[in-house]
Amino acid sequence: MVDEDQHDQQQDERYLREALELAARGPLPDPNPRVGCVLLDAAGAVVGRGFHAGAGTAHAEVVALADAAARGADVRGGTAYVSLEPCAHTGRTGPCAQALLDAGVARVVHAQSDPDPVAAGGADLLRAAGVPVDSGVLADEAEALNAVWTRSVRLGRPVVTWKVAASLDGRSAAADRTSRWVTGAAARADVHDLRARCDAVVVGTGTALADDPSLTTRWPDGSLRDRQPLRVVVGDRDLPSRAAVLDAAAPTLVVRGHDPAAVLETLHGKGIRHVLLEGGPTLAAAFLAAGLVDEVVAYVAPVLLGAGPSAVGDLGITTITDALRLEPTDVTVVGVDVRVTARPRATTPQKEIV
Amino acid sequence: MVDEDQHDQQQDERYLREALELAARGPLPDPNPRVGCVLLDAAGAVVGRGFHAGAGTAHAEVVALADAAARGADVRGGTAYVSLEPCAHTGRTGPCAQALLDAGVARVVHAQSDPDPVAAGGADLLRAAGVPVDSGVLADEAEALNAVWTRSVRLGRPVVTWKVAASLDGRSAAADRTSRWVTGAAARADVHDLRARCDAVVVGTGTALADDPSLTTRWPDGSLRDRQPLRVVVGDRDLPSRAAVLDAAAPTLVVRGHDPAAVLETLHGKGIRHVLLEGGPTLAAAFLAAGLVDEVVAYVAPVLLGAGPSAVGDLGITTITDALRLEPTDVTVVGVDVRVTARPRATTPQKEIV
Ligand SMILES: NC(=O)c1ccc[n+]([C@@H]2O[C@H](COP(=O)([O-])OP(=O)(O)OC[C@H]3O[C@@H](n4cnc5c(N)ncnc54)[C@H](OP(=O)(O)O)[C@@H]3O)[C@@H](O)[C@H]2O)c1
Ligand SMILES: NC(=O)c1ccc[n+]([C@@H]2O[C@H](COP(=O)([O-])OP(=O)(O)OC[C@H]3O[C@@H](n4cnc5c(N)ncnc54)[C@H](OP(=O)(O)O)[C@@H]3O)[C@@H](O)[C@H]2O)c1
Repeated sequence: MVDEDQHDQQQDERYLREALELAARGPLPDPNPRVGCVLLDAAGAVVGRGFHAGAGTAHAEVVALADAAARGADVRGGTAYVSLEPCAHTGRTGPCAQALLDAGVARVVHAQSDPDPVAAGGADLLRAAGVPVDSGVLADEAEALNAVWTRSVRLGRPVVTWKVAASLDGRSAAADRTSRWVTGAAARADVHDLRARCDAVVVGTGTALADDPSLTTRWPDGSLRDRQPLRVVVGDRDLPSRAAVLDAAAPTLVVRGHDPAAVLETLHGKGIRHVLLEGGPTLAAAFLAAGLVDEVVAYVAPVLLGAGPSAVGDLGITTITDALRLEPTDVTVVGVDVRVTARPRATTPQKEIV
Repeated sequence: MVDEDQHDQQQDERYLREALELAARGPLPDPNPRVGCVLLDAAGAVVGRGFHAGAGTAHAEVVALADAAARGADVRGGTAYVSLEPCAHTGRTGPCAQALLDAGVARVVHAQSDPDPVAAGGADLLRAAGVPVDSGVLADEAEALNAVWTRSVRLGRPVVTWKVAASLDGRSAAADRTSRWVTGAAARADVHDLRARCDAVVVGTGTALADDPSLTTRWPDGSLRDRQPLRVVVGDRDLPSRAAVLDAAAPTLVVRGHDPAAVLETLHGKGIRHVLLEGGPTLAAAFLAAGLVDEVVAYVAPVLLGAGPSAVGDLGITTITDALRLEPTDVTVVGVDVRVTARPRATTPQKEIV
């Protein structure tokens, strides 16, 4: 009995690992999590595989069931391996838990449990119908595969990465507001990679008016990448109709008002999971002060300016013990610049005596 | 003949390497270069060794000659290996080139040529007296051993390292001027190591009055290190007699006036080769604007302040193309902070088209 359990566990992990590999073929970024599914028939042969190819397409379980059907296979009495708990809600494709039940699957093994309260409940639905469900096998790996999505679902808003480029003395532009190329070519290329990993790029009207940036994601030769994040401009001032950010290269959303939480709520409603906040200092300060920055990516250029707009506006901090302290997670030299990735810390463990 | 030459060259390098190892036992920092000497008798046996133990003590050649004499050895017809060209000037210990001549040495091999126009000429003096001199063997290694001293001699002033500690947004203190522990404990310990490698620590009266720093070099437990750099305060305002910088822990020099070049001239005259400029922003800006900073050591803390004094004062830079660009030579994570070491660049090779 012990041996059989061990065999089962090894087999479960093997098929779930395959489901995870399938999942990883899904697009990123995307409003939906990346999910993979492997179906076994009653005899234990793999008869169907599927992954979710992004919002607007079928879920992994549905794809795998269709794959099995196309092969003329019968999954009745078989097992479904899914990297995420099958959903219980009726979305674009109907609840996957129900689809597995309808197909006669006799056992379900899934990795991550669905953190989304709307979609969750699939495991319970299956169990209530008498189908045994093993939950949480390889859950950490599955969660890592959808780290941003999971965090976003738990937060109930998009994850916010604030990107800032500044001189060693913290200036994001010179005194005359010229800011082009504070950082070097490698850092700028790196920012385009960062944009490509996000669903939306957000700036204030101040930046849109001062720099007239296109906010598109481009290759080093200047050509547009295939996928463009949503461009978002926050503020009440009107943009000139010729503004680069309003061109046809990518969709753009203008959000009136000054409330960072409202901006994120709007974006959350549009399926945006990962926002790249690109400034400027005023908007960044508003997000930071509201506790709505989850990650900071700072490009520090080996440059001194001595004057010019600061990388971040007033945060209401007056004394050093109130400083907003970050926990660095990565420090990498990017060309001539240094990229510091960090997360805001809840506490301030800097009270050593020296 | 070729074989003998090759043999000679190998032998020369071997004894010069020993001279370099002896030199490295000398103190650092010191007004004088670190020098080592190995003496061979006419038969080729090592009969004397010496190194310079710092300003106020005998030169390496004199020490090695005394060593040979103490052993009852005769260096007449022998060879002297010295890591630096023997001096020709009459300092505290008389010209070493003359001492070698007087001892009857028949050949001299030295590594670095003396960059000091006052001390140089020893090789010529020896050659004029009929003693063959091989100059420049392992010269690069010898120069590296006295890198700061060599640079200082060439510049005709102390080498200046500017140390700055700032938040990610370039603030060196909070709005209320509290600046203690912008950086973490490891960075602060690192600064004490940096001070220990310099001959003098320089601040403006602004810093002395605002922070009342002791500017001593301490161990992490707070105890004073054996050797203390000269403390220098620049500016016209008087310091209170109870100022920490005026305590008995280390010597202190108050330099009136605002001219960075004059400050360095004064320090140069006192045998100071390496100055650690510790700020604040006003004095740092004056040195930077005068082109009198040779190296920048910036500790960037993963902290945001949003307000407070900037790491560096106005440099007269108004537009981005005039930015003071630095060439990073090292980026190291020190505790929670990032230390960027960099040198000012003469030119501005940032005109890529992107
Ligand atoms: N180095 C970098 O990483 C970087 C990045 C971006 C920008 N920059 C520089 O930043 C400068 C622009 O600075 P900026 O601060 O004006 O830009 P900004 O933060 O992009 O825009 C400020 C504007 O955003 C609107 N806004 C939205 N939410 C707000 C809130 N909670 N509080 C206040 N205003 C809010 C306001 O516009 P309305 O008045 O229209 O309502 C405000 O005037 C430019 O020189 C640009 O080059 C540098
Ligand atoms: N984070 C760091 O690395 C760091 C390091 C040091 C200081 N700080 C902070 O810096 C603040 C002090 O700033 P600060 O700028 O007043 O300090 P400062 O640069 O040390 O002192 C400025 C004073 O230096 C004198 N001075 C000498 N040469 C000058 C010149 N060429 N031009 C103008 N003045 C010259 C003037 O004094 P007189 O008026 O007396 O002639 C001037 O008021 C403090 O809050 C301190 O905490 C931070």
